[in-house]
Amino acid sequence: MDTHEYFMKMALDEAKKAEAMDEVPVGAVIVKDGIIISKAFNTRETDKDATCHAEMTAIKKACEILGGWRLIGCSMYVTLEPCLMCSGAILQSRIEKLYIGAMDPKTGAAGSVLNAFEDYWFHHKCEVYAGILQEECSNILKEFFRKKRAK
Amino acid sequence: MDTHEYFMKMALDEAKKAEAMDEVPVGAVIVKDGIIISKAFNTRETDKDATCHAEMTAIKKACEILGGWRLIGCSMYVTLEPCLMCSGAILQSRIEKLYIGAMDPKTGAAGSVLNAFEDYWFHHKCEVYAGILQEECSNILKEFFRKKRAK
Repeated sequence: MDTHEYFMKMALDEAKKAEAMDEVPVGAVIVKDGIIISKAFNTRETDKDATCHAEMTAIKKACEILGGWRLIGCSMYVTLEPCLMCSGAILQSRIEKLYIGAMDPKTGAAGSVLNAFEDYWFHHKCEVYAGILQEECSNILKEFFRKKRAK
Repeated sequence: MDTHEYFMKMALDEAKKAEAMDEVPVGAVIVKDGIIISKAFNTRETDKDATCHAEMTAIKKACEILGGWRLIGCSMYVTLEPCLMCSGAILQSRIEKLYIGAMDPKTGAAGSVLNAFEDYWFHHKCEVYAGILQEECSNILKEFFRKKRAK
């Protein structure tokens, strides 16, 4: 397991926490200099808050821990391609590298429905790498929705 | 002053609170059935949090007050065209109507740099109306940045 897979595995562990709470299983971690700064999972239903996606909560925690709104030198690992809101927050917070597990053809904003990370759009650049532990990240979601439909 | 101008005036009052704290002066209010549900202003510097734009905080407050993440029947009035993050959050929270004061040619995602509200993108539709008290909403920002440059 390489470094990227290691951190994505941590994000997957977060996604499992969401699953245990009957939330759509998405997890995110933010890393700086090889150290995990924050971890979070989707809590939209539990917190009754549309903004509580894993990425948003991870960003809020990282800002608090690092003491500023610019997450310079930080990378995010997220199990699912971020939506528009989360992609915007990743850019706003100046995260420098984004590692994605599974793509989201329905609402993903890092290349699927649109690409928020294309260089015409925002003054800050964030490099995007997709497909880290793709199968595991995709399977946890597929299984979640399969069980939902079977209910 | 019509109803839309009345609510935009309330958003402008929020922007003035941001200005008083040396924050980029942007304010937002969320309205349902003619009643203000939440009000907020940009606190990115004060809260040291990249996600603390006026719209995000107004959405979080409205979700808390209404007790759910879906802001059905709600309208948002915001003094400046929302960025990508906030446009995404407006769609995620199912806000139905968005009233904008001034447009933001640099990072606005409701028609300027891109249009997050175009119907190809997201299953939820939000109607967008721009130009409510445009001059006042624009002037408070221009004056803020003029003073910054003069320092």
